[in-house]
Amino acid sequence: MDFKGLEVGYDIPALPGMTAEQVQTPCLVLDLDALERNIRAMGDAARAMGVRHRVHGKMHKSVDVALLQMRMGGACGVCCQKVSEAEAFVRGGVMDVLVSNQVTDLAKIDRLARLGLRGARVIVCVDNAQNVADLAAAARRHGVVLECLVEMDVGAGRCGVNGTAAVVALAQAISTAEGLRFSGIQAYHGAMQHLTLFADRKAAMDAAVDLVRAAVAALQGLGLACDIVAGAGTGSWRLEAGSGVYNELQCGSYAFMDVDYGRVLDQDGRRLDQVWENALFVLTGVMSHVRPDWAVCDAGLKAVAMDSGLPVVWGVTGVQYLKCSDEHGEISDPAGILKINDKLRLVPGHCDPTCNLHDWYVGIRGGLVEAVWPISARGKGF
Amino acid sequence: MDFKGLEVGYDIPALPGMTAEQVQTPCLVLDLDALERNIRAMGDAARAMGVRHRVHGKMHKSVDVALLQMRMGGACGVCCQKVSEAEAFVRGGVMDVLVSNQVTDLAKIDRLARLGLRGARVIVCVDNAQNVADLAAAARRHGVVLECLVEMDVGAGRCGVNGTAAVVALAQAISTAEGLRFSGIQAYHGAMQHLTLFADRKAAMDAAVDLVRAAVAALQGLGLACDIVAGAGTGSWRLEAGSGVYNELQCGSYAFMDVDYGRVLDQDGRRLDQVWENALFVLTGVMSHVRPDWAVCDAGLKAVAMDSGLPVVWGVTGVQYLKCSDEHGEISDPAGILKINDKLRLVPGHCDPTCNLHDWYVGIRGGLVEAVWPISARGKGF
Repeated sequence: MDFKGLEVGYDIPALPGMTAEQVQTPCLVLDLDALERNIRAMGDAARAMGVRHRVHGKMHKSVDVALLQMRMGGACGVCCQKVSEAEAFVRGGVMDVLVSNQVTDLAKIDRLARLGLRGARVIVCVDNAQNVADLAAAARRHGVVLECLVEMDVGAGRCGVNGTAAVVALAQAISTAEGLRFSGIQAYHGAMQHLTLFADRKAAMDAAVDLVRAAVAALQGLGLACDIVAGAGTGSWRLEAGSGVYNELQCGSYAFMDVDYGRVLDQDGRRLDQVWENALFVLTGVMSHVRPDWAVCDAGLKAVAMDSGLPVVWGVTGVQYLKCSDEHGEISDPAGILKINDKLRLVPGHCDPTCNLHDWYVGIRGGLVEAVWPISARGKGF
Repeated sequence: MDFKGLEVGYDIPALPGMTAEQVQTPCLVLDLDALERNIRAMGDAARAMGVRHRVHGKMHKSVDVALLQMRMGGACGVCCQKVSEAEAFVRGGVMDVLVSNQVTDLAKIDRLARLGLRGARVIVCVDNAQNVADLAAAARRHGVVLECLVEMDVGAGRCGVNGTAAVVALAQAISTAEGLRFSGIQAYHGAMQHLTLFADRKAAMDAAVDLVRAAVAALQGLGLACDIVAGAGTGSWRLEAGSGVYNELQCGSYAFMDVDYGRVLDQDGRRLDQVWENALFVLTGVMSHVRPDWAVCDAGLKAVAMDSGLPVVWGVTGVQYLKCSDEHGEISDPAGILKINDKLRLVPGHCDPTCNLHDWYVGIRGGLVEAVWPISARGKGF
């Protein structure tokens, strides 16, 4: 056997041109055809419904995927959750970035403002009056404009202010703060994205839309237009897009899909993994098979996030991933069909934290490695 | 406020000389004094009991910590679980490495053998006869010696062969394979490490020791000496060390401690977090506090592994980390004692996968950042 060209390791699990079988496991694999179809379909849908799509970069943390979503899916930019993610995206050339989260630490605010010096449009969420003053001071210090969205709590009970009066008060503080620009409202309802039935998600979203519509109208009456009314995830985007009040979607998982979203049912009763294709897989290899009905693979909880349940083996019937530990996955194999060194594709339970475990996406098309993309913002949590 | 010297971001959360308060959150913090006391105490204990300690590098994945354990704790080398981890340790100067796992993929075996060309002592575990032939072929191809341990299943039911006859058969195959050296037995009992009561762990370990002793004696009778009889974790090491048959410990978590091991009781009834100091923390900042009794911090499940339960807030009474999502932690604060930008230390539920989420250890002594160590083998799963 000739190992020339297989000399991977030292930080990278694959090289372009390799066959899929030669990729070192465990690693993340993207089916590039499926990914591109998902990206085009969401771009078309947003365009048809007359809303912008600011793709959620916290899901994939990849400059390459974000740029593909902008070029092929017409996305207007990215959102992300952390300043260090925003830094990675701007560094990679994504110049329209919303940190859909509070940034309150003074050094972080300074870093955020400095992204403006690099020519990026920088938007951030606010739910606290002192934070308005701190953001404004940093913007003035660097001579940049920071755009601010008031974050509303529309049912998640985590961050965001409650009710129109609180929204208006913060919006007025932003609009009068030199260095800041009031750009609208962030109203993401995270808690309902994974409700299985569309009717349940619609009920939660109807209540949220009422809150957002009232706030937008009150702001309008005060001369504070909302250029951005933002929210929506893969479980709810049709509702926000059709609400008449939201104008910017923030979907992430649609591009890759996972087991958890796959169980959720769309409006027409289809599972979401029938609406969006599974494009992300954890490639794993069988490395022990002492018991005839039980295989051990090399992807445990350091390779697949388990917060939303175990991964599912893709395209092989009769086997099931049943148990994980740090470095191993245990797979029932009652018919003994697996052999040592067999490679399996796992669909992760939850794509976001799974992507955050790896350094590379291995993009595959037609059985060959076409691209090896760094996960640019992996681990960028600060 | 002067931000000179605080210009972190762009991949690094702190710089040496900063105060602990200036560190960007979330990130991993090491209490260097506590870490060094743990390392010395385990080194002293192993020496006193007459066994070697091969520290488990899969826990911290750090060349710097491993070298400290060798220098300050007398460790004989490291073990790890993956070839890419071994590559990172050898690259960093740790020249005695055991991959305490099966390596079966042919390209991985080739990478493993090539570590021998770099002057490292390379040891690997085997539970399959074909694997013996594949390892031997790679060793001969590169003109190196790969040392092999036969892995025994002593109760975990995952990898490893069962019973003396199977151990002997593999040991004989190894000892007659040109390029390989039979070096002993790997007999780690992972499933029992976290049993709360010492008596329960002892019962499980007594059964394991009987299996190992029988195998070692049978091998001895055939002229196959076990230079290494390896196993033991932070929950069980006193038992292996005192068994008279194990001679090499593989503890990892003792150096950092975590919530899950902290609940386990030692021989004398002390909790293990009274035996070993908490040296590892996730530093987090409060970034939203809209509800007076509920704070939101910036460390969610991408910053703290949740597989063994939620983290615990260190040194602050009256608050409790109760809920996590991808990017946020939610902390009950009934007395309203937390303010936005307060920094908290969290003790992670499980140290190993938590360390694997981060790129840096921020080592603190006397309130100042003394060291910023890369997590050299983070994400090295392949």
